[in-house]
Amino acid sequence: MLDLYHAEPMANSLKSLIALHEKGVPFTSHLINLHKFEQHEPAYLKINPNGQVPALVHDGRVITESTVINEYLDEAFEGPSLRPADAYGRARMRVWTKFVDEYFCPALSFIGWHHMIRNITDKLTPEEFEAKVARIPLKEQQDKWRTSAKQGYTPAQLEEWGRQVRVSLKRMETQLVETPWLVGDAFTLADVSTFAMVVHTPLRTPNLMNEKDTPRLMDWHARASARRGVQAALAMPNPVLETIEAATRSMNV
Amino acid sequence: MLDLYHAEPMANSLKSLIALHEKGVPFTSHLINLHKFEQHEPAYLKINPNGQVPALVHDGRVITESTVINEYLDEAFEGPSLRPADAYGRARMRVWTKFVDEYFCPALSFIGWHHMIRNITDKLTPEEFEAKVARIPLKEQQDKWRTSAKQGYTPAQLEEWGRQVRVSLKRMETQLVETPWLVGDAFTLADVSTFAMVVHTPLRTPNLMNEKDTPRLMDWHARASARRGVQAALAMPNPVLETIEAATRSMNV
Repeated sequence: MLDLYHAEPMANSLKSLIALHEKGVPFTSHLINLHKFEQHEPAYLKINPNGQVPALVHDGRVITESTVINEYLDEAFEGPSLRPADAYGRARMRVWTKFVDEYFCPALSFIGWHHMIRNITDKLTPEEFEAKVARIPLKEQQDKWRTSAKQGYTPAQLEEWGRQVRVSLKRMETQLVETPWLVGDAFTLADVSTFAMVVHTPLRTPNLMNEKDTPRLMDWHARASARRGVQAALAMPNPVLETIEAATRSMNV
Repeated sequence: MLDLYHAEPMANSLKSLIALHEKGVPFTSHLINLHKFEQHEPAYLKINPNGQVPALVHDGRVITESTVINEYLDEAFEGPSLRPADAYGRARMRVWTKFVDEYFCPALSFIGWHHMIRNITDKLTPEEFEAKVARIPLKEQQDKWRTSAKQGYTPAQLEEWGRQVRVSLKRMETQLVETPWLVGDAFTLADVSTFAMVVHTPLRTPNLMNEKDTPRLMDWHARASARRGVQAALAMPNPVLETIEAATRSMNV
């Protein structure tokens, strides 16, 4: 029995959806609609008390954190390996996934929230909004909702996160001059983590990723996008795409 | 050939020193004195361009990030295993090490820097200070040095990090009611990561860790401290202890 609780095929949910489809592991999909705050419903908090997606349940045991889930999937299931065969390669892979988790993803996430959250929260009365936020288990997440929904982040904060995004993209481009995939000759969880973050970047914020400035990254993106497992992951239901599209039009990163 | 470049036996450097000594792997120790800014010297930047410790060099190949180094050491060398034998146990271990890296360690680090850095930087003229900071490769680290050395962080920031430290300690105490070590019956890299952060807490900030409020954590700390590998790691040279002791007297977390 393998169940994945996840949001739309973007960001951290996409990471685990790609790993599952690349390995060809059958699983039951449970879509948690973040725009309906389903991640904070009591039923979901029984699975992940932190109220975050994705969460994997394997034979009744819960595993959280998409990066941890992906290493688990690769260790526990048959199918094409998504990690280098040698310890040094796995170390380099983990440096990448850690960089995505601690640097690239937070920068992207804060910028995205700043521009996107009001599209959701403006539909709520202040009382409804506070009732939603009060249910959020993590104070950090409560703060992020409140700041994003109200005054937003400061121009200095947004500029710094924008800088971090550009530093991250440059790091990727530089690596891809050396190797076809991020840690060598094979597609690994480093590529999965990174691709999940930039899946829509060439289309939605082409000033950041384009043929002129980041040709290697564009080629890598095309090769990743063409993979059968990646395509299957991207074909999962995406109920919030419209909201994101509206938000992207107001973004300038 | 195995070389570890590290600072005093505290925090992230201690993590890798414990892993090496627990496994009994012979290595050459290279002490990088952070209070002399040796981590930003050109010689060290050749090893880790980010100017951070620790860094492991194994047969000419560099591995950075203490959490990644520790999994590498456990995978690449003989000696007692520091990771659970099963994939689910390793996943739980990685959730812990990730939590330490992304939540507990940053909170502790910002508080420590706020109280400690001026003990170092007050000995420099403004020109000397700027020359030191200008050499730092990562802008985030430059910002941390400048803010800590000048106005310091705001009371609201310090209060939030203090809250995160208390949340973290409670999470540890709660887990240790269930299991003798953080992910079960055996000492693993989850304990290594966590212990490296709180090694001096019972002595220096006993309001946070003491027999009354955190009895399980105190017992776990005593059992970890008694281990031969941990003792060997803690016996490594510690040239900055005096500076830290002076700073701790002014702390109130």
